[in-house]
Order: sequence, then structure tokens, then C-alpha cells
Amino acid sequence: MENPCSSSIEKLQQDCYDEWMSLQAKRMTELKQALSNGEKNHDKLRDLIRTSMREIEDYAVKRSEYSRRYSSNYFAPTWNTCLENALLWMGGCRPSSFIRLVYAMCGSQTELRLTNFLRHNNIAGLNIALDDTPGGIGGGESMSDIKAEQLFKINELHLKTVEEENKLTKQSASLQEDMADMPIAITAFYKEVIGETDVAVERALDKHEEDMSSLLAEADKLRLTTLAKIVEILTAVQAADFLLAGTKLQLAMHEWGRSRERRLLEPFGGDSSGEVARE
Amino acid sequence: MENPCSSSIEKLQQDCYDEWMSLQAKRMTELKQALSNGEKNHDKLRDLIRTSMREIEDYAVKRSEYSRRYSSNYFAPTWNTCLENALLWMGGCRPSSFIRLVYAMCGSQTELRLTNFLRHNNIAGLNIALDDTPGGIGGGESMSDIKAEQLFKINELHLKTVEEENKLTKQSASLQEDMADMPIAITAFYKEVIGETDVAVERALDKHEEDMSSLLAEADKLRLTTLAKIVEILTAVQAADFLLAGTKLQLAMHEWGRSRERRLLEPFGGDSSGEVARE
Repeated sequence: MENPCSSSIEKLQQDCYDEWMSLQAKRMTELKQALSNGEKNHDKLRDLIRTSMREIEDYAVKRSEYSRRYSSNYFAPTWNTCLENALLWMGGCRPSSFIRLVYAMCGSQTELRLTNFLRHNNIAGLNIALDDTPGGIGGGESMSDIKAEQLFKINELHLKTVEEENKLTKQSASLQEDMADMPIAITAFYKEVIGETDVAVERALDKHEEDMSSLLAEADKLRLTTLAKIVEILTAVQAADFLLAGTKLQLAMHEWGRSRERRLLEPFGGDSSGEVARE
Repeated sequence: MENPCSSSIEKLQQDCYDEWMSLQAKRMTELKQALSNGEKNHDKLRDLIRTSMREIEDYAVKRSEYSRRYSSNYFAPTWNTCLENALLWMGGCRPSSFIRLVYAMCGSQTELRLTNFLRHNNIAGLNIALDDTPGGIGGGESMSDIKAEQLFKINELHLKTVEEENKLTKQSASLQEDMADMPIAITAFYKEVIGETDVAVERALDKHEEDMSSLLAEADKLRLTTLAKIVEILTAVQAADFLLAGTKLQLAMHEWGRSRERRLLEPFGGDSSGEVARE
């Protein structure tokens, strides 16, 4: 079936997202490759990290351009699964989630290293073989080498990021509440015919979409600077592991969301692949 | 085209919403009728208000039941317009918006009364004819009679409501961040195939949906108690005017959102009625 929205701004936004997801998949493969080769050439890793960061920035620039023409769609995009939309904060993930991911990787790797240590009973030191761990070499173990100084900086960044997030959340709350004020609520009250076109309302809604677009740009900026600061604090291998984890998480959430939707929304459907259980 | 979601939980949720919107339209007519008759029988008005409140409560109970089976869809419902979804807070409007609406109505009515006062130059008093105002009798003018004592109570309620909202916003942020932690983010990192089914992930996502469902119920409870307290503070006529304004705003936002979507998503349409552009 032809997409009824072809040629529309929503189509452009969706194409931009699809392109972004393909790029993410490509970047994931490259990062994985570089890490599993036990890439010792940190300059090459840093190049890859810089490319990833530039791509994220480019995507934010494109989003900002498209959102100036239709911002509402970015706050619960039609191309997202319901699961992803329920998790959205200002059209994307919370910047503080990036930091939570660093902590999760540190914890998971430390736990893994400890398990291996006990299993191998290698009391000589912690520098043990991880070849039977799920990830093997390039499996994120760099994160267990994180230093106290780095963690201190990450923690500082965390506090600052949450503060910035809260500021944007307040701005969004204020924009949302404006709908219950002049001229929108009052015009709605006096209109005899519900939804009748009104110039003052249209102007107010245009202004609202503009303000939401600016807010999206601010949120994207915060996401980007938070990422950049994390990458700066981490070593090249750690940063590559971290970016790989973030990319895989984003791609996986989209797929898991889709599987869950298929299960929930098409209870009598017929896909015999057995990939996902159906009711 | 047959809805692919028929018989699914999403269909039940949508039917529940459609029923709710029809009920809102019916209630709007009844409130308007009672108010424009210059209903002096406050008992009758109070009955109507009680019925409205009970309906809102019933809807919350139904949402809660359906959201326990599939909560994600309530945070950016497929039946909403993008504009409405961009304005959502925990699957509905911010409870503090109700208070903002009270203030907007007070301000608008005071302004209207002042304009009329000046126009009629009725220096004998403020009890002037409003028959040439947009609403006429039953046009929300009760709100300009609001007393300082009532406004004080409304203001107290405002502060308390914002505090409660912030608590729920924090809980939601915490649930969102959990996605970047064990087991979801770490499983995503170690999976070779993106989106491959994983028992631990499915369990974590089920738990997440459950927690989001509880959060939705909490938010609905806050919306309901805030409404109930406002209605308690206001006189019967004021409360009826307020509920009418809230209902009209909800119905109008849905229609305005639809008109804007049609214009934005179908730019090459040709409806000669001129009301809205269609493809």
C-alpha cells in the first residue's frame, strides 16, 4: 500500500530516521570490528569515535531543520514503536541515560571479571582470560578498568546533566500548560462548533510548535554535549565500547518493541517463523 | 481497510477512548444547556457535575484495567493526533493545567466584564448585561465572581499539585533510565543478533510496562483528585462552567490537531470547502 504521507514533511522525517538507523547499524559493525580486532591503534579508534559523534551531530541538525516545519511528530514519532515512544524524553532518550549506561557497563564488567577470577581461581591477579565471556575480546571489558578519577568526573557530569534535564522538563511543562490558557482554552470555550478554524488559535499553535522545536533542539544539544563529555572522559577503547553499547541498545529496543507489538496487536496473525510467540 | 488490530488490546483501548469522547460530547451539550438556561437550581447542576466526575473516574478505572495489559500505548496513543501526543504528560494532561484553566477563565471573564463596563459606561455597578459577549448567559461569566478566599485555596492546590506532578515525573525518569541498565542494556550489548528474543529482557520489559501502568494509574488519580478539589472550591455554576471549558478544550484540541495534520501531511490535497485541505 502506498504511504498516504508521501511527499509530506512526515515522509521526509521518516526517511531521515531510516537513514539514521542504517547508519547506526553500519557504525555498530565498524565499532565491533575495530574492538574485536583488539584494535591497539588508538588513533584509528579515535577517528571512528569522531565519525560517530559527527554523525550524531548531523542527525541533530537535520532533525532540527525538519522539526521547524512540524515539531509535534518528533515527540511521539509514528515510526517508533509504542514501547520506544513511552520511553521518550523530548523526542529522544534522557541524556542521563548515557551515564547510567556507563555505570551499568562498569558494574557488569566488574561482576564478569570477578566471576572469571573465581572460576579460574587465578589468585595471581585480575588480568585474566575473558575468552569464554559472552563478548570475548572487545566485549566491553575495558569498562572494568575505569579509574576512580574518571568515575568522579562521570559523577560530576551526571549531576550537571540531571540539572539541565530538569530545566528543560520545566520549560516543556510550561509550554504544555499554556494550552489551558489564552487564547486556546478560551477560544475553545466560546466556539459554538468544536474544532472550528480560528486564526488566533492557529497562530498560537504555530507558536507552540515553534517553541517545541526549539526545545527539541536544546534537548538534542544536551544529548550531544553529554555524549561528547563522556567520550572525552573515557579512554579510546572505553569510548568505543560505550558508543557500541549505546548503538546496540537503540537498535535492539526498536526490534524488541516491534516483537512485543506484533505479539500484542496481532493476536490471530499468522507468522510461522516462530521468531516471536503469538497468542 | 480492515483494522489489523481488531480483537487486540489496542482495539479495546481505542473503543474505550472513542466511547469516552462521545460521552464528553454528550456531557458538553448537557452542561451548556443547563448553564444557558441560567440554571438556578444548584442541586440539578451539582447532580450534573457529580455525574461528570463519576464518568471521569469510570474512565480512569477502565484505562487502568487496559493499561495493565498494554501500558505503552497510553503514553503516546495511536488514536491521538501528534499535537495531542506532544502535549501529553503521563498519558493525559498535566493536573496543573486544570488550575491554569481556572485562572485563564477568571482573567478572561474579568477582562470581558471590564470591557463591557467601559462600553456601557454603567458606573452604577458591575452587574451589567453580557448579552453581546461571545458566550452570553452561561458563557463562563461566573468565573469573574470568584472570591479571594477561593483563589487562595486554588493557589494552595496549585502548589501542592505541582509538587505531586514533580514526584511522578521523577519516578517516570527513573523508569526510563532503567532501560540503560541491567539487564536490558547489557543483554543488548552481548547479543550477536540485534533484537534476538531474550527471556531476561522480556521479563524486564514486562516489569517495566507494569510499573508504567502503575504510574499511569497514579497520574490519573492525581488528575481526578485535582479536578475534585477544584470543583469543591468553586460554586456550582463556576464548577459547571469550568468542567464545560475543560471538556470543550479536550474536544477542540483533538479537532484542531486533526486539521493541522491534514494540512501538514497531505499538502497537495484539494477540498474546495476551504475548511481544511484534503488530499
